Amino acid sequence: MSESASRSWSGPDLTAILEARKRIAPHIETTPILVSYPLDQLAMATLYFKCENLQLSGSFKIRGAANAVFSLSEAEAARGVVTHSSGNHGAALALAAQLRGIRAWVVMPRNAPKVKIRAVEAYGGEITFCEPKLEAREAAAAKLIRETGATLIHPYDDNRVIAGQATAALELLEEIPDLDMICAPVSGGGLLSGTAIAAKSLRPEILVAGCEPANADDAARSLATGHLEPAAQAFTIADGLRATLSPRTFTILRERVDRIFLVSEAEILETMQLITEHLRCTVEPSGAVAASPALHRQIAENLEDLRIGIILSGGNLDPDVARGN
Amino acid sequence: MSESASRSWSGPDLTAILEARKRIAPHIETTPILVSYPLDQLAMATLYFKCENLQLSGSFKIRGAANAVFSLSEAEAARGVVTHSSGNHGAALALAAQLRGIRAWVVMPRNAPKVKIRAVEAYGGEITFCEPKLEAREAAAAKLIRETGATLIHPYDDNRVIAGQATAALELLEEIPDLDMICAPVSGGGLLSGTAIAAKSLRPEILVAGCEPANADDAARSLATGHLEPAAQAFTIADGLRATLSPRTFTILRERVDRIFLVSEAEILETMQLITEHLRCTVEPSGAVAASPALHRQIAENLEDLRIGIILSGGNLDPDVARGN
Repeated sequence: MSESASRSWSGPDLTAILEARKRIAPHIETTPILVSYPLDQLAMATLYFKCENLQLSGSFKIRGAANAVFSLSEAEAARGVVTHSSGNHGAALALAAQLRGIRAWVVMPRNAPKVKIRAVEAYGGEITFCEPKLEAREAAAAKLIRETGATLIHPYDDNRVIAGQATAALELLEEIPDLDMICAPVSGGGLLSGTAIAAKSLRPEILVAGCEPANADDAARSLATGHLEPAAQAFTIADGLRATLSPRTFTILRERVDRIFLVSEAEILETMQLITEHLRCTVEPSGAVAASPALHRQIAENLEDLRIGIILSGGNLDPDVARGN
Repeated sequence: MSESASRSWSGPDLTAILEARKRIAPHIETTPILVSYPLDQLAMATLYFKCENLQLSGSFKIRGAANAVFSLSEAEAARGVVTHSSGNHGAALALAAQLRGIRAWVVMPRNAPKVKIRAVEAYGGEITFCEPKLEAREAAAAKLIRETGATLIHPYDDNRVIAGQATAALELLEEIPDLDMICAPVSGGGLLSGTAIAAKSLRPEILVAGCEPANADDAARSLATGHLEPAAQAFTIADGLRATLSPRTFTILRERVDRIFLVSEAEILETMQLITEHLRCTVEPSGAVAASPALHRQIAENLEDLRIGIILSGGNLDPDVARGN
């Protein structure tokens, strides 16, 4: 590995994160931090919920997408952006491109949920459908790039994206500086990488926890073995958490994440219900995962009065899931 | 009518509202104002949603309850507070009392929804059940007052409560000062009275609209005839909007509200779905009513680019309603 590649894998630093915040602030929401006395009683802890489900585009993904899009030079921007995503990153990139007034091509598998397709369309994204296989997606994206000269914005393997995602934790810690722990979901590792860098930079003694479906536990296995492990084969309702770490995010997480909590499918559903009842906001399954360890007392068994920040990462609930199908 | 009674019916002034804000600020949330590009396109207007559904206790009611409870003298507070409510005011008063460390008795009808009973209990309220009739409720509250010396905090016929409710519009207009119109739901008229006083004081040219289920249209009829009209007999899913104006709130609304929009039951359900999909937050039926006129183009037919503030008043959705039962 060359030294410069190694450096880039170390991820963005606090300066890059502060620059990202300044760059995206005119375009995104400073999301609310909600509290609930009944949920605190349940958790035996004091919980601060950072509501990225209430973010523009319905998830934190607009932070990274906007930072990447507004980092482009005029010449690059004029040729547009492209990504492959069946999830929230595609819609977020379409919205970020719309906010800058440039084109966005989004490669989606033919079987993507209708609600995700509608979201990309609502923000003016240009959809190219492909077969639901990673190679087909990458080939379709590569073809678009050859034809248009557009810039690829990867969902997580990109320091501009990671710096953008980090701004959620930055906002949370600026408002609640004395957190003992911060919990974020982990999939490809972009949000958790950014969260860990921001949190440990601002408050070195904070504990950083990744939260992952037990049925998609590649991050837990990778951090345990010290090698990038392949994706799990089991199904999880948390459709946004099925990606796997990249060498870049794996490197960042090994250095800065204190532990990974695993969450069962039943716990995900129960957490969604608790959030709807007590915080009155909508989370998608992936968006609820980071709240489960606290609400199911995986954290506070012997540690009362811990102050825990939780990133509710997204709210784009598929109506079929909402109806229990 | 004596002159002093007449004066009290004129409601709180801006000074009282600013004092209320200062009094309750340490105890409540400054709720977020959410926006959505797809909803703006649907409404052909620019919409700002003031999310009182994300307020502590799940509705704006904590604003008025907290202002009343923290206005009490030490001696009054020591004897506690009492109210009769089948809805959000009961839970909010229980929470406000808990925040001050005093007792709250809540008279509820035996057939109140379980979710509302659970909420009052979660905040330490002491429930007295009674027959589901207004006389039974008032008699039970009067008996509690005789026995305990507690202070009655009426859900809306009280200037301290109205001043508290007004702080939601105050926050909205401080953040978005150039609104053309502000929409709030109307039931007993406490929230709409406070909204109208705050909005017209800060911005005399603003249009103030009350939004009411067509099936519970007593405010529309009362303002049309100039007399307090009795409650409608039809059923509405908006269980929080079944109360009727008091002479006090009627007087305030006659002077300061520009129009009332009527909303059908189907429109209420559709509005709830639109809010869940595009704002990712949970509104109860009553909490969605003020958004319906804009989203169903009752407002913007020939008035593009109006800037409209909308108060989403509550999020305590009954699980039975959420399941479509």
